[in-house]
Amino acid sequence: MAEQPSKIDFYFDFASPYAWLISDRLEHLAARYQREVVWRPVLLFAIFKAVGLPAPMETDAKRRYMLHDMERSARYYGVPYRHPANFPAISPVPGRLFYGIGEREPAQAKTFARQALKAHFVDGKDITRPEVVTEIAGQAGIPAGSVEAALTGERGKSLLRESIEDATRRGVIGSPFVIVDDEPFFGADRLDHIEWWLKSRTRAEA
Amino acid sequence: MAEQPSKIDFYFDFASPYAWLISDRLEHLAARYQREVVWRPVLLFAIFKAVGLPAPMETDAKRRYMLHDMERSARYYGVPYRHPANFPAISPVPGRLFYGIGEREPAQAKTFARQALKAHFVDGKDITRPEVVTEIAGQAGIPAGSVEAALTGERGKSLLRESIEDATRRGVIGSPFVIVDDEPFFGADRLDHIEWWLKSRTRAEA
Repeated sequence: MAEQPSKIDFYFDFASPYAWLISDRLEHLAARYQREVVWRPVLLFAIFKAVGLPAPMETDAKRRYMLHDMERSARYYGVPYRHPANFPAISPVPGRLFYGIGEREPAQAKTFARQALKAHFVDGKDITRPEVVTEIAGQAGIPAGSVEAALTGERGKSLLRESIEDATRRGVIGSPFVIVDDEPFFGADRLDHIEWWLKSRTRAEA
Repeated sequence: MAEQPSKIDFYFDFASPYAWLISDRLEHLAARYQREVVWRPVLLFAIFKAVGLPAPMETDAKRRYMLHDMERSARYYGVPYRHPANFPAISPVPGRLFYGIGEREPAQAKTFARQALKAHFVDGKDITRPEVVTEIAGQAGIPAGSVEAALTGERGKSLLRESIEDATRRGVIGSPFVIVDDEPFFGADRLDHIEWWLKSRTRAEA
């Protein structure tokens, strides 16, 4: 009996352009290798603080380069992208909703996360606002009562905090950060490396 | 009359594994698009200081990831790589030699630079030592008298300093940092983006 291939952990921040740039492509890649992607939103500023890294956007020279690279990378990958007005946003609201919903309805939570990234990085929505996030969740088919409970309850909040601690323990240093079979890959530009890894594992198991 | 296509500026630090990982591939890519690569060694620590960035290797979590990624990236790109014992090295010696030679003999200086990266990242040579660098320069066909003059004279030193200032002005934030037609690309993982850029320019000019 073949063992179930392990899932792919996708750590990301809802405010991270590079997370949006890899998200759909990562899902498509994983599907081709019969792997499931587990979305794990975190708050980067909390991880940076925990591991002692400065936020990249804090340094002028790096900020200038990254803003340019984000837009050019979107064109290169063929992913729609419009730089959001509030950037970088602090994203506890969609994170809490995601985990508040995700325990019972992982598929709905993933749909919400995907649509929240799109809303923020294509449609210019301010995903720090509960009413905006509520609307996106509604469009993702999540009942209004569940949204309300997830946003105001303690469960989403504490699961988000646990996920940040878990990410910090596992060496996450930015977004997107993908872990496949304990192998860490940082950045939207690591998709080819991830595919190379998946391919080598598939051959090894064949 | 067709205008001469502009040269490709390759800013790098002799102590940077990612510079070694891109250097040959960048030369091959440039050759396919009839572009010349101008090698411009710098000292990253001086740039980091000038722009206010911490060295990435200073943070444990980032250091761990990068050490792993350097070796894995070498396998992915099919480039020979052995992590040097003295890492990260501080590299003014090869930089001074490069610029001291390069004004009169740019081709020799480039050959030296290529061999110095290889000596450091494949053969484990300590390129911070003048006698090691002198030996590499000799193997690159540079006369002993020129090597001695470049290492001890003021010219190489001041050209290295100018190159660092120039790099800082142009937005260099790490190594390798490639500038094509004023378009900046940071990282060994940007070769595909550079090719995409070169291709679009070739079409535009055709």
